[in-house]
Amino acid sequence: MEPGPLSRPAEQGRCVSGSPSAGAACPASLPSTAGAEPGSRPAAVAAVLPAGGCGERMGVRTPKQFCRVLERPLISYTLQALERVCWIKDIVVAVTRENMEAMRNIIQRYGHKRISLAEAGATRHRSIFNGLKALAEDQPDCKLTKPEVVIIHDAVRPFVDEDILLRVVTAANEHGAAGAIRPLVSTVISPSADGCLDHSLDRAKHRASEMPQAFLFDVIYEAYQQCSDYDLEFGTECLQLALKYCHTKAKLLEGSPDLWKVTYKQDLYAAESMIKEKISQEICVIENTKDEESVGYLLKEVLRNELNFVNITSTPLEHTGGNIQNFLIAQCYSFICVNVVSSNFQETQKFLGTLEESSLPLLYPVVVVLVYFLDLTLVPLTQEMENLMWIRELAKEVKKRNVLLSGLLINYSQDEQKLQESLRQGASIIGALVKERSSALAGQLLVA
Amino acid sequence: MEPGPLSRPAEQGRCVSGSPSAGAACPASLPSTAGAEPGSRPAAVAAVLPAGGCGERMGVRTPKQFCRVLERPLISYTLQALERVCWIKDIVVAVTRENMEAMRNIIQRYGHKRISLAEAGATRHRSIFNGLKALAEDQPDCKLTKPEVVIIHDAVRPFVDEDILLRVVTAANEHGAAGAIRPLVSTVISPSADGCLDHSLDRAKHRASEMPQAFLFDVIYEAYQQCSDYDLEFGTECLQLALKYCHTKAKLLEGSPDLWKVTYKQDLYAAESMIKEKISQEICVIENTKDEESVGYLLKEVLRNELNFVNITSTPLEHTGGNIQNFLIAQCYSFICVNVVSSNFQETQKFLGTLEESSLPLLYPVVVVLVYFLDLTLVPLTQEMENLMWIRELAKEVKKRNVLLSGLLINYSQDEQKLQESLRQGASIIGALVKERSSALAGQLLVA
Repeated sequence: MEPGPLSRPAEQGRCVSGSPSAGAACPASLPSTAGAEPGSRPAAVAAVLPAGGCGERMGVRTPKQFCRVLERPLISYTLQALERVCWIKDIVVAVTRENMEAMRNIIQRYGHKRISLAEAGATRHRSIFNGLKALAEDQPDCKLTKPEVVIIHDAVRPFVDEDILLRVVTAANEHGAAGAIRPLVSTVISPSADGCLDHSLDRAKHRASEMPQAFLFDVIYEAYQQCSDYDLEFGTECLQLALKYCHTKAKLLEGSPDLWKVTYKQDLYAAESMIKEKISQEICVIENTKDEESVGYLLKEVLRNELNFVNITSTPLEHTGGNIQNFLIAQCYSFICVNVVSSNFQETQKFLGTLEESSLPLLYPVVVVLVYFLDLTLVPLTQEMENLMWIRELAKEVKKRNVLLSGLLINYSQDEQKLQESLRQGASIIGALVKERSSALAGQLLVA
Repeated sequence: MEPGPLSRPAEQGRCVSGSPSAGAACPASLPSTAGAEPGSRPAAVAAVLPAGGCGERMGVRTPKQFCRVLERPLISYTLQALERVCWIKDIVVAVTRENMEAMRNIIQRYGHKRISLAEAGATRHRSIFNGLKALAEDQPDCKLTKPEVVIIHDAVRPFVDEDILLRVVTAANEHGAAGAIRPLVSTVISPSADGCLDHSLDRAKHRASEMPQAFLFDVIYEAYQQCSDYDLEFGTECLQLALKYCHTKAKLLEGSPDLWKVTYKQDLYAAESMIKEKISQEICVIENTKDEESVGYLLKEVLRNELNFVNITSTPLEHTGGNIQNFLIAQCYSFICVNVVSSNFQETQKFLGTLEESSLPLLYPVVVVLVYFLDLTLVPLTQEMENLMWIRELAKEVKKRNVLLSGLLINYSQDEQKLQESLRQGASIIGALVKERSSALAGQLLVA
């Protein structure tokens, strides 16, 4: 059997860096800022997410952080990305009063942990300031512990990974402030008052300031306390506040293109495709080992050949019950159940039951494809379809629980060439179902 | 019957603004630059597209302008967008010698018109200069006519529309140079030599310089002739060259978010989704009028309710032959053939034949859904499926010609509520087939 997904990083509120097996270094190795020996104890880190924007640039009424991607609000993906990093102790989200209840529902529904809410202000800077106040011990009713380092991140940058978070936190610990940057995609110009070109900036000498950023808490909190109403109203750059009010020159760190901010409608499309691609990377083939194993093996081989960059694991049906949680943790949301006989309605129900009983919320639609092999020269296709009509009914049922169930009949021809052709077609159908995760097509019986 | 698509703008090498019915003004109303009376004759306009980039930022080997979106190279979409504008007389594309043949194949395969090729240089500016030389009459072997105004556009900005092209050309005619700008998405900062923040720029006082840009030909050609090797090697901004060498202050015009440049992998995803969305806006329901019309009418109504923002037109089957070209011109690439009897293999073949005989290249995959209504209490589903097995074979055949054929059986229940439910499910299946255009799912018989 192939290595199971257990060796890959966990997610969903579970820490990836807490376990010794994780690849990334933990900021336990960061020098403490309290004057102790470097490396003596971990720096306490919290994060603040301003999420009070109204999304006017998106051209839609819903604020962009609440726009749905695969039915789930964008901000939930960003929270998920931060939660995975166990050394972030608290995550403070600043939302407007009117979205407070919606935000609480999101936290509950998707099982987010370590989240506190603060009220957003009228501008981004005011929201961040409110988030910082929730962490500052000088505030009345403060229930959180003041961190040494605070990360500031955008609710609409869901693809932040632990590597860049660790790098900004480490650099902030050393320099007082740090932020991710990217090369400029377009030349930046300065218009004159009459709307003509005054001058253009040398692209090589400038960078786009992105997120995440990190600061020694005392530095950025001091900066926000000192700064003017004008800064709070019209400013856009936290690094600039640290420079202006605390003379702290932020360290700039090159980030990956994935840090981009979901701003326009096309960004939302891109985010959806990125997320779909990410969760299509893992497919688990569940084999009904009571029957001959060769069919499942054949299918796995063809899936590996046809679906490049997809990791195909497999597990026997009787083991899925205990493993299902681990598969979900390992971001495997696609299950291909290989069957030789068509009468396994109960086994399928049992498997779907284990999905339902999982204590983890289903963060993505789960694709389940029931694959049946049949020799069309022996059994008429339509007879087999008749036998499988229960899939349509069951699919309707499980769709309510975010499971997309389909049936796939593969012609198990005695002719080797025809068999290979059917397997290839079957693999590409599976690829499309896994990649597109279309709820409209759930419940169908497809034929290869 | 609903208004046919003929009243909407044409495309595919056909000019949208040449006909008096087109909404946009034609630059025929531009003042001539040759000293004649304003409005006396149209300004001659050409376009130059630098397409010599290697796409290193995309993280893939294929240069981004040749990356495929729905199987078609991105640059073909950009050419299509420029070709639609009939007052652009010539389009010069600068490609590297090694991509020259591939580019010729693209032009031929997708029927692009008014395109000339120039050899790309080692940098963007050198490529543009080569493109301009191909239009300058002082060059030996020049076969093109020198334009008064030249548009410079990127091969990787496929969503440029006539409005912004007209605006930059008009402004260039008046000011000598003009370019599209966008607000900055991120704050721009200037790093110090040690990689720390030196200062950040006021976002409100700066803009991102985008494309298209336009110039009086003599201005920009002069600027390129005058400019230094350093400019050609390291410069990024044509507007800056016009300013520096011809003292021409470009007029800056606010563009739409659609002007964004496909730069990273996520941009390619976004482009694909945008294009899919665009071609999903038009669905034509083809009715077999020999039978009762009520079924097709019902389906159309439900499609209108379920698929928001989609324009549903309809036409009787016997008229499709002559109309098919008009539908394709009007960007309608989705056909729903409503049938009451299942024995219309020949009619379907005839319809698919008209698609094939169209003199226009199929720029997008065409979705054809054959819809059959049947009362499942009278006819067993599997019997009807048996009757429709020819769809699978025919689908394989037409897939080679970029037509994605599927069958859809809708339960025509006598129970009104059940019928409505089936119609709604059918509409959402049609919506998914039209939107996703997945070739892996062609040839399937789906059931609602």
